[in-house]
Amino acid sequence: MTVPLDRTKPAHSVSKATSGNNAIALKCRDCGTEYPLEKQRLCKVCNGALEVIYDFSLLDSKSLIREIEAGPQSMWRYAALLPARPQAYTLNEVGMTPMHRAFNLGKRLGLNKLYIKNDALNPTHSFKDRPVAVAVAKALELGADTLACVSTGNLAGSVAAAGARAGLKTYVFVPADIEPGKILMAQIYGATIVAVNGTFDQANTLAAQVAEKYGWAFVNITMRPYYKQGSKTLAFETAEQLGWRLPDHVLLPVGSGSLYAMTVKGFEELINLGLVADQTMPRISGAQPEGCNPVAQAYLSGATQFTPVTQPRTLAYSLAIGNPSDGNFDLKQARRINGMMEQVSDAETITAIKLLAATEGIFTEPAGGVTLAGLKKLVEAGKIGKDESVVLYITGNGLKTQDALEGQMAENRPVAANLAAFDRWLG
Amino acid sequence: MTVPLDRTKPAHSVSKATSGNNAIALKCRDCGTEYPLEKQRLCKVCNGALEVIYDFSLLDSKSLIREIEAGPQSMWRYAALLPARPQAYTLNEVGMTPMHRAFNLGKRLGLNKLYIKNDALNPTHSFKDRPVAVAVAKALELGADTLACVSTGNLAGSVAAAGARAGLKTYVFVPADIEPGKILMAQIYGATIVAVNGTFDQANTLAAQVAEKYGWAFVNITMRPYYKQGSKTLAFETAEQLGWRLPDHVLLPVGSGSLYAMTVKGFEELINLGLVADQTMPRISGAQPEGCNPVAQAYLSGATQFTPVTQPRTLAYSLAIGNPSDGNFDLKQARRINGMMEQVSDAETITAIKLLAATEGIFTEPAGGVTLAGLKKLVEAGKIGKDESVVLYITGNGLKTQDALEGQMAENRPVAANLAAFDRWLG
Repeated sequence: MTVPLDRTKPAHSVSKATSGNNAIALKCRDCGTEYPLEKQRLCKVCNGALEVIYDFSLLDSKSLIREIEAGPQSMWRYAALLPARPQAYTLNEVGMTPMHRAFNLGKRLGLNKLYIKNDALNPTHSFKDRPVAVAVAKALELGADTLACVSTGNLAGSVAAAGARAGLKTYVFVPADIEPGKILMAQIYGATIVAVNGTFDQANTLAAQVAEKYGWAFVNITMRPYYKQGSKTLAFETAEQLGWRLPDHVLLPVGSGSLYAMTVKGFEELINLGLVADQTMPRISGAQPEGCNPVAQAYLSGATQFTPVTQPRTLAYSLAIGNPSDGNFDLKQARRINGMMEQVSDAETITAIKLLAATEGIFTEPAGGVTLAGLKKLVEAGKIGKDESVVLYITGNGLKTQDALEGQMAENRPVAANLAAFDRWLG
Repeated sequence: MTVPLDRTKPAHSVSKATSGNNAIALKCRDCGTEYPLEKQRLCKVCNGALEVIYDFSLLDSKSLIREIEAGPQSMWRYAALLPARPQAYTLNEVGMTPMHRAFNLGKRLGLNKLYIKNDALNPTHSFKDRPVAVAVAKALELGADTLACVSTGNLAGSVAAAGARAGLKTYVFVPADIEPGKILMAQIYGATIVAVNGTFDQANTLAAQVAEKYGWAFVNITMRPYYKQGSKTLAFETAEQLGWRLPDHVLLPVGSGSLYAMTVKGFEELINLGLVADQTMPRISGAQPEGCNPVAQAYLSGATQFTPVTQPRTLAYSLAIGNPSDGNFDLKQARRINGMMEQVSDAETITAIKLLAATEGIFTEPAGGVTLAGLKKLVEAGKIGKDESVVLYITGNGLKTQDALEGQMAENRPVAANLAAFDRWLG
């Protein structure tokens, strides 16, 4: 039963409460230096990425499963495994998106146990609502009054919506030459658009300086360690929706690479905590567009470090990240867990978008087309077996990126408004 | 816990099975003539609308609640109260959309207990997925191999997606002069577009003839009695998500008027079956745009019959139904249950769309703006008390109707890519 919490106090009044969760510190992924759970992106010693670390020693798997199953129908049922608690006045209806057995698509691909996790059904239509929810909850705990991000796509809308609900001032940094349609969602939610005269990289640099000077909670800069943790919940839900079992294989898109890293982390936590009976890590494979393929290219050529792509050219804008922050980390993880990285052309992406829609009734953004096209290639190459259980993550909705399909639809044959004409039309 | 059903047989192989539900007949709303549960829209005696009737005498409220709560996280948890069962290969992830306490918006409106039921989070982004799911399930039971509808908007996408998943041939009838963007969703899902050279009414007439001649399952013509039943689930979920309580007031948009009629029916069934402790029917109020206000106009002038609007003029296209099939029925219901009908201007609709987005992080289609603007008017007129519990239904998403907001957003002030310039920009 889903009962909306009848809370009587605004989130802000409890923002100084201890979080009561099991996170204990930030820790540098490279040199291991630890920091308190504050706003901070990088290690002051070595500039490495910071990660949230936990003490789960007091958790008992059976009671944890009971707690989770009795929890809200949202990602916050996994609060014990996250670095922040949901606040009262925040956009909490994120996650627990549907997963279904994809019989039609499975048949077309030659997979007997294919599932689709449709994460486009989050409040602002992409999986970004998950990391944003954690970043905002933590920002409120830390007393933030201003939320911000640098983005050109899904993230802008997600942050703006979350900021609106939380009652925070919200700034979205974008390059000034962005198409107006791309920021409509952020604007309608009331965010202030900071249109920077310059490239995306320049907008990013300015944002980092603003974060430093004004102390604003930039979800993907100063709040990044918390932000990233939200993506783990996709792995948690996958296992729970399979009846606390792990799939054999998971396919997902690789942009910044953070979803890949956190999916690995999420499944490992499930195993380590004994929440699933399985002990075998799923293989997790990523897909990138050929026009922006730093990680896939490195993987396929056997390199341990990727070469940045300076001029991304792909219709999958949300994956057009030439210098992915978790790219090298993901390459290492992929090799460790026997995952793969695949790359696909824009034409293959369009074909996959249509295939997904026509078989499963799901209209995905290009990133989903990239992921499905990647899965198709791996199956055709015999790298994924027909009886493996495979979960395909669809992480964003196609309505925001309809331009990608311009000119791709068949012309309609009009018919006169009478039955005889229709009979002939039908042929 | 949500476990996707691991079904091994295609839906088609069980399509002749008895439905096993509690529906017993179709019955004319006007003259009472009964018909078997087949494809049929109108009474052959008096041309009245047909309704599904049930025998609920064997249902026990306590076990029913247990069954529902143990059911899937979708509208199909209420299958016992619907005229069809979910089939295996169909788009079943419909319903159980989030409802949340809207503190921010409530404060702005002066309502202490306002909830929003965000039904835009259905698979194709509108509540239409509910009636379509029931129509498709019943169509498969009846052995249909072709699905169809007449539509210019939300319904086209919903039917096309459901048809894709069910593996049915799907035809969407539209007037040929429709904007291509309006049918992109239906096309991407693989439906065949029947572009009729003529008005919407002419397309409708042709569709009825085609339904008769070819026996196709037109969800909103020959399947209409079943189709309508799906909308009851919005009322069921509202009560369950309030902890099996009824709200004092529900606000919803009125287009064909079928959602209004079925919401009344849904709440009455909950009371009659003893699923809720409350015995008082919620007041259910509807909102229409001034440019297409047949029901509101009749209500406000005290008429018992509406006068059709021949030239709807409103940006809320999905409510531009000048001759609503359930209009007169709804007028009668509204008077019986003390509901109200309100009308709002396009300007009020735009303001409400922005207010909802900026306070609650929800981007609605114009119909949602109409509903919120209607609520605002009723509160300001003192017709809804500040301590009443009020549920606002948001029935469709704004991404499909972005043109409604063209020119409505503030211009961005660009800023140079350096901190000093940003400091001045911020002021």
